[in-house]
Amino acid sequence: MIKQLTLIGVGLIGGSFVLDLKQRGLVQTVVGVDVNAQNLRDALALGVIDRAESKISAQSVGDADLVLLATPVATLPEICRQLAQFLPSEVIISDVGSTKMSAMSAFMQFLPNHLAHCVAAHPIAGSDKSGAVSAHTGLFKQKKVILCPHNNQSSGSLKKMETLWQAVGAQVYELSAEEHDKVMAAVSHLPHLFAFAYVHQMLDNPQGAGYLQFAGSGFRDFTRIAASHPQMWTDITLENRDNLLKLLSEHLAQLAYLQTCLHNQDVEKLYRYFAEAKQVREIWGQSH
Amino acid sequence: MIKQLTLIGVGLIGGSFVLDLKQRGLVQTVVGVDVNAQNLRDALALGVIDRAESKISAQSVGDADLVLLATPVATLPEICRQLAQFLPSEVIISDVGSTKMSAMSAFMQFLPNHLAHCVAAHPIAGSDKSGAVSAHTGLFKQKKVILCPHNNQSSGSLKKMETLWQAVGAQVYELSAEEHDKVMAAVSHLPHLFAFAYVHQMLDNPQGAGYLQFAGSGFRDFTRIAASHPQMWTDITLENRDNLLKLLSEHLAQLAYLQTCLHNQDVEKLYRYFAEAKQVREIWGQSH
Repeated sequence: MIKQLTLIGVGLIGGSFVLDLKQRGLVQTVVGVDVNAQNLRDALALGVIDRAESKISAQSVGDADLVLLATPVATLPEICRQLAQFLPSEVIISDVGSTKMSAMSAFMQFLPNHLAHCVAAHPIAGSDKSGAVSAHTGLFKQKKVILCPHNNQSSGSLKKMETLWQAVGAQVYELSAEEHDKVMAAVSHLPHLFAFAYVHQMLDNPQGAGYLQFAGSGFRDFTRIAASHPQMWTDITLENRDNLLKLLSEHLAQLAYLQTCLHNQDVEKLYRYFAEAKQVREIWGQSH
Repeated sequence: MIKQLTLIGVGLIGGSFVLDLKQRGLVQTVVGVDVNAQNLRDALALGVIDRAESKISAQSVGDADLVLLATPVATLPEICRQLAQFLPSEVIISDVGSTKMSAMSAFMQFLPNHLAHCVAAHPIAGSDKSGAVSAHTGLFKQKKVILCPHNNQSSGSLKKMETLWQAVGAQVYELSAEEHDKVMAAVSHLPHLFAFAYVHQMLDNPQGAGYLQFAGSGFRDFTRIAASHPQMWTDITLENRDNLLKLLSEHLAQLAYLQTCLHNQDVEKLYRYFAEAKQVREIWGQSH
């Protein structure tokens, strides 16, 4: 049982996590801290949080057992800097961000005395929705959560976060922060770049708007992630830019191969390329 | 009322169309012609077709009012060549392929005497499913169908196909074959190439298989179309390669821009790029 959980950034992920914890009686009081006053009012009205605070202070974090950082990843350094002076000694600090090297670096730089209790975590349950109004129970059921233990990690704090995530229905995995960022660049951040780039291409094409009226279900699914939060994805892609730049180069080689196949009208190579991709996607689909 | 509709290629699109027509009493007998004997048995068992034929002959098309070509687009020239000798004079020939310049070219080369009654058509209702077993009623409800009238078109035959597609719930549009192919390259064929290329990149990456176990809902939707029929997409991308090569070049410029933004850590440009794409996608989503 957590007596006080302070949620910094009351959005889809953090809000849904505390709703699930509340439903299971695993948390007594949730204090929400957010820069957006309307978002805080929504969160109070919807029962996501029990008390609203506009800033990090002794009042908002001084009595917390767990401080959960659920703001855009680029804000972590400044938030950790502010937290340092108010944190009780045994409090667990954890986060939900999509890049983990940057989270670890904020913890190490600004919370060196709390490092043992800093647990870098990433629930893979993002969506194009955001804000407290989008929070809902059950979001993490059968979703994967990656914890990134580090050399100075308290095993008790790590275990506590693992238990909470499992309690809300998630499957917990452990990867190093470095490995996590490589994985996520490949399976999440890269396709977001592609979806943004493709939709932007339609915007830049003088005929694009006319074309889009004939777009169907393939377009719908392929571009859903292009409606994702622009600030969040600016942060994520910059925090993970080295991995992304490497993968972008690999992707350009794939497209160059397709250009050559099309240019040479190479039926066999195109067929084999599409068939191989289809097989990978189908095998993945059978187990996910 | 159509007395006999001969469906050449009994798959998702053609099968679903005739099921809808049957349900509405708009066709008396459906004769299915397919090279796959098992597929024909499935189609008979499921009531998609009333009679099965293994080849184009006087028996399969000699009494037809409407011959619907619903095979992979690359097969149209050979099918039209075979059809020519058996067609009754007033029969309507129509198709459902994803590229229309190539359909027109097959009609013009092999059915010059029937050209007035050749109606190039494309129902935008494809999926990654295929075969007679995937056919079902209601597939075309509120889906768009593009008809591509030509200079020698019989207005009666065009009107007949428009009426049938509207009867099964589709919204009918008219575009020239050339314009159709440009539109479809942009909104459908291009994202298929991207999805295949991205999944193939994961296949080619030595760590790819490990990465994929952490793929979530973004990956699922983005790559759904990579499970599409490889032969069908080999045909489509080759038939529409000039438009696709042009769009691929434009896309490489978009990715190069993103590479530069990431390399320079240009927060503002990245944010604006993502925000603009999000807006386009959201506006599209509101009306589709």
